[in-house]
Amino acid sequence: MEQVTTRFVTFEEELRLESGRLLAPVTLAYETYGRLNAVASNAILVAHAWTGDAHAAGRYSPQDRKGGWWDDMIGPGKVLDTERFFVICSNVIGSCKGSTGPTSLNPQTGRPYRLSFPIVMVRDMVRAQQRLIDHLGIGRLLAVIGGSMGAMQALEWGIHFPERVGAIIPIAGTGRTSPMAIALNALARQAIYNDPLWKKGNYKPEHPPASGFALARAVGHISFLSEQSMQMKFGRRFSARDGLFDFFGQFEIERYLEYNGNSFVERFDPNAFLYLAKALDLYDVAWNFSSPDEALERLNCPSLWFAFSSDWLYRPEETEAVVAILARQNKPVDYHCIASDYGHDSFLVEPEKFTPYVVRFLDEQARQAGC
Amino acid sequence: MEQVTTRFVTFEEELRLESGRLLAPVTLAYETYGRLNAVASNAILVAHAWTGDAHAAGRYSPQDRKGGWWDDMIGPGKVLDTERFFVICSNVIGSCKGSTGPTSLNPQTGRPYRLSFPIVMVRDMVRAQQRLIDHLGIGRLLAVIGGSMGAMQALEWGIHFPERVGAIIPIAGTGRTSPMAIALNALARQAIYNDPLWKKGNYKPEHPPASGFALARAVGHISFLSEQSMQMKFGRRFSARDGLFDFFGQFEIERYLEYNGNSFVERFDPNAFLYLAKALDLYDVAWNFSSPDEALERLNCPSLWFAFSSDWLYRPEETEAVVAILARQNKPVDYHCIASDYGHDSFLVEPEKFTPYVVRFLDEQARQAGC
Repeated sequence: MEQVTTRFVTFEEELRLESGRLLAPVTLAYETYGRLNAVASNAILVAHAWTGDAHAAGRYSPQDRKGGWWDDMIGPGKVLDTERFFVICSNVIGSCKGSTGPTSLNPQTGRPYRLSFPIVMVRDMVRAQQRLIDHLGIGRLLAVIGGSMGAMQALEWGIHFPERVGAIIPIAGTGRTSPMAIALNALARQAIYNDPLWKKGNYKPEHPPASGFALARAVGHISFLSEQSMQMKFGRRFSARDGLFDFFGQFEIERYLEYNGNSFVERFDPNAFLYLAKALDLYDVAWNFSSPDEALERLNCPSLWFAFSSDWLYRPEETEAVVAILARQNKPVDYHCIASDYGHDSFLVEPEKFTPYVVRFLDEQARQAGC
Repeated sequence: MEQVTTRFVTFEEELRLESGRLLAPVTLAYETYGRLNAVASNAILVAHAWTGDAHAAGRYSPQDRKGGWWDDMIGPGKVLDTERFFVICSNVIGSCKGSTGPTSLNPQTGRPYRLSFPIVMVRDMVRAQQRLIDHLGIGRLLAVIGGSMGAMQALEWGIHFPERVGAIIPIAGTGRTSPMAIALNALARQAIYNDPLWKKGNYKPEHPPASGFALARAVGHISFLSEQSMQMKFGRRFSARDGLFDFFGQFEIERYLEYNGNSFVERFDPNAFLYLAKALDLYDVAWNFSSPDEALERLNCPSLWFAFSSDWLYRPEETEAVVAILARQNKPVDYHCIASDYGHDSFLVEPEKFTPYVVRFLDEQARQAGC
């Protein structure tokens, strides 16, 4: 693929959030891959997960060692074939990867928002994305696809902008976050709150609450893995460098969690992490509806769903509950529970297990849309 | 039951630990319920879990609002019938409830051991208990019973003192701790390490690392519950006192974890918690054997095993792996996977689901032993 650039667009008009608070200006960081066709009918929106960003594919420069976070999926001849589709990915509001979030300047004070940033819900992220789609001159998306928090965004698109989306592909998502998922996020939150450097969100960017944040990430990591993947990858191996009877000796799994937590500190902002955790916890498709059924009744496009057998963060049963309602409502819905040992991360680790269904589904949508 | 008292016995002789280190003196806190018969054939040892203690049953005074931690199980006419059996429970070494552990005085320095306390394994706990059994004049225990870490102790008794135990009843245990369980303990450890008050274990008892320790306990709590029990108990209810769009607003599950974490700080020592977490992580019945089969080959008493369907800390599959080996070895073994929604805690929450099997099993053992 050609080199890619992250672009930015700023909307001055106030965005009314679910909380009732107004957010302005709203900047979105985004990238696009491929070309929008003349009738703007070939656009696919990719929605990212918790700590993702707009850089879904390609490289910024030939020297880049790694491509975007879904580079395997997006490009010429790939699942999201950029010779046929115009693929868009934008960083969500509330994040710290170029879109407006707690690290942005609060225009009222001239200083970063930090904890004065309003609580955002997944629905708010999608409303902001809708402005980007307007800005790009796209009346109707061919599809919205995403995993984890991206799956929530895809579903919100289908429900709140039914006239503007042709199909949705939610992967490893949920119709509402379970108390177990909330409890795990509660640990992550407390890990950050406990760090004296956090200072109720008023840390200096150069002195982040690194140890609390690394621990918070480790909590997340555990929930993305599974019993099986930990057995395969680490088992009960003890770190070779440590003595078994050393108080600070570590098992390999422990060293891995610590290492990954520490490296994460370099690339994400703790406050943004907390705001997005809150958005995840608050996620409930039935929010402001009388029931999930009433919410899902509004979905009128085809939907293709995937869950993974070993995912214990957003369990297959949760996707199945949503799919069952759609099926009862006689909506065009297709669902696959993919046997995989990699837990919630399966959608990133073993894409080949579900992408054939995506290719077929998108081809059908595209042919119906005439692109 | 009559009022109970915790007793203490101190053994001056050095205890050689698995690590090779020597521990002396070794004090054990213990309680007994019922009467040892003339031929000392009616003694049952109850082994406690991670943060348990010797106070398994009865009340210290009539004013006590609560009995011991397994008071439902132990007493006249109860499952462990003190009119028939002599029941013993002792606090494990490494703990802080009266037995020798990191809060005890190191005789070499005259100051508390803290992190100079040696690493102990479950096998070491059992070796110390064996001295107590000698002290009480009991040649052979009728049975050893325990849940969680207590199940590990029961199994170690059966394997390492086969001539001194008539039967074992491991409940909600494992033959070796899984990487998932280790990973969760790693979070708990790190939560304590991150607390500046921990000071590498050198905190003042009156200034413990309270916030880190409360978070560590919350990690444990999550692993003792289950998706189902959280759904039943908390669902997605938001704390009535908080606003949904308040940054620090909490779901009920979150408030519960915080509350329980904080109250735990009052009743346990962080260093002891860490030492026992280490013992749990290191637990492997095959330790110092060439295989689990070789270890289990030594067990020659009847064993009765329980696992709980929703326990994701020590999953039924783990108990089943041990039971399968014993069955292949033609050992007298009985196993029940109990359908329960309460996760690892099921053995405390729904004892009535498994106790009928225990009553029958103990009656048979007792009749064969003539008591």
